[in-house]
Amino acid sequence: MAVYTEVTDEELRAFLETYDVGSLMSYRGIAEGVENSNFMLHTDKGAYILTLYEKRVAEDELPFFLGLMNHLASRGIECPTPVKNRAGDLYGRLAGRAAAIISFLEGIWVRRPQPRHCVEVGRALAHMHLAGADFELTRRNALNVDGWRPLFESCREGIDAWQAGLARELDSELTALARDWPRDLPSGVIHADLFPDNVFFIGDRLSGLIDFYFACNDAFAYDLAVCLNAWCFEEDGSFNITKARGLLQAYTQVRPLDAQELAALPLLARGAAMRFLLTRLYDWINHPPGAFVKPKNPKEYLTRLRFHRGVSSPAGYGLDA
Amino acid sequence: MAVYTEVTDEELRAFLETYDVGSLMSYRGIAEGVENSNFMLHTDKGAYILTLYEKRVAEDELPFFLGLMNHLASRGIECPTPVKNRAGDLYGRLAGRAAAIISFLEGIWVRRPQPRHCVEVGRALAHMHLAGADFELTRRNALNVDGWRPLFESCREGIDAWQAGLARELDSELTALARDWPRDLPSGVIHADLFPDNVFFIGDRLSGLIDFYFACNDAFAYDLAVCLNAWCFEEDGSFNITKARGLLQAYTQVRPLDAQELAALPLLARGAAMRFLLTRLYDWINHPPGAFVKPKNPKEYLTRLRFHRGVSSPAGYGLDA
Repeated sequence: MAVYTEVTDEELRAFLETYDVGSLMSYRGIAEGVENSNFMLHTDKGAYILTLYEKRVAEDELPFFLGLMNHLASRGIECPTPVKNRAGDLYGRLAGRAAAIISFLEGIWVRRPQPRHCVEVGRALAHMHLAGADFELTRRNALNVDGWRPLFESCREGIDAWQAGLARELDSELTALARDWPRDLPSGVIHADLFPDNVFFIGDRLSGLIDFYFACNDAFAYDLAVCLNAWCFEEDGSFNITKARGLLQAYTQVRPLDAQELAALPLLARGAAMRFLLTRLYDWINHPPGAFVKPKNPKEYLTRLRFHRGVSSPAGYGLDA
Repeated sequence: MAVYTEVTDEELRAFLETYDVGSLMSYRGIAEGVENSNFMLHTDKGAYILTLYEKRVAEDELPFFLGLMNHLASRGIECPTPVKNRAGDLYGRLAGRAAAIISFLEGIWVRRPQPRHCVEVGRALAHMHLAGADFELTRRNALNVDGWRPLFESCREGIDAWQAGLARELDSELTALARDWPRDLPSGVIHADLFPDNVFFIGDRLSGLIDFYFACNDAFAYDLAVCLNAWCFEEDGSFNITKARGLLQAYTQVRPLDAQELAALPLLARGAAMRFLLTRLYDWINHPPGAFVKPKNPKEYLTRLRFHRGVSSPAGYGLDA
């Protein structure tokens, strides 16, 4: 939650002259995202988000992220859509940063998802996977199974300080994941971070998906495994099989899973839990004391990882064999 | 710039049911104000600001602040207008805080005001003073001439640490201000904080005044003296008499100043500079190291105070005698 870069009215006006978005009525910094500066713009043509990309989103990756949003929108996926400037580019420069103007997507993220929301998410994820099929750019998943081990080693001591003996448990888990990880599942562009705060609803209708800044190429079923972790556990850590069944069934009605994908689900879910456990551990261990943005507690992802280790077949997630 | 209080979608929906503002499409925390939590709401009826009042705005003062905005709007002054809930109240409770829904005012504050902006501000301030005449509530100015001495004493040592010898200079200045301060000037409701970030423009047209949370009853000409300080100095500290003349002439065309007010202007301007110098010194001296919100440097108000001490008549501000 932050605005890192101040933008003066004069700079913004000059920037907007390179676009055909109407004349400026107001702009306000919005307290959201920890990686970019975001402003809500009102013009006489409508509402937009202005994003200034701060350090963590590399400028050379913008053609992938913004191009993907543009591509998905052209295929009927509801998502924020970058507005091209008069030169036809998806982004320009403002206040020394790469900057894009993106259509404002109405909707609210659901703090306490219900099974009906999980159904909507499963369906939308499948549609996104299909719509991304003919997107021409690719981006490797820097946080895939090969990236977890180095991340783990970089904070091994901190992990044991946080919970004695945990490093050993994660070490052997990482070895098992690397050994058994399926490398030839159906793949394409995945969202890779489809948590509840990245899915908007108006009433009970899903109005769109946002935040494609972790999108990359990887196994579709891994994206589904991320959602199983993000959507199907209760606040007390318990697994809600009704939510999982709703999510998976809705997904497979749009894009059926093959036998390999089905069989891999428990392992993929362990991997997805490991990925978020490791980044949360990293942030927890490395955040400066008194930092403004409090890191999320890694504990819930440890619970999830252990849960998935006990699942031996897709039936554990509510799917019939 | 902050959102201090998180509001869940469920809490917000329940709160909105007590209003007739349409159904919720989106809400985003906005990074503005250091005292309250603010959200931009879109409903199918339009855009609103939701404000949750944090500690610094006392709940028992809300009837004054919100009632004033409501009163001014009913008299044709462009400003954010509180929406009454179904019970007819100007505020309710949300997430444990007093909370109000306020119409969204389009416009942009001008980072580098030009003389034409000062003319608009002068005219709008005079209209506000006239429109507030029959507002029935009152609020004393806690930061008036009687409040400066205690504020000064509370940080006298810090002031000398910041700039050796300054405490002595301010001490005698405060003595002179208390001795000479005019107590019987025409008075009424004043804004008391009409800085550039509280005045919105769309193009060159002033679209409204915002942030009435320092409003109180005091001398009208003191409000004008605040504006002389806030609008008529350049970034290098120099005084721009063209801006001052524009501001004052536009004001007096709507609400003429009497002889007493005119004569008092230099002293009122010294007092206004002292008021902002003291609160900035206080914040500068007392802010926790590493605080997220950086306090503003008091230096520019010291320069202004010394400038006004050299002005002996309204001619020094561009007004003919």
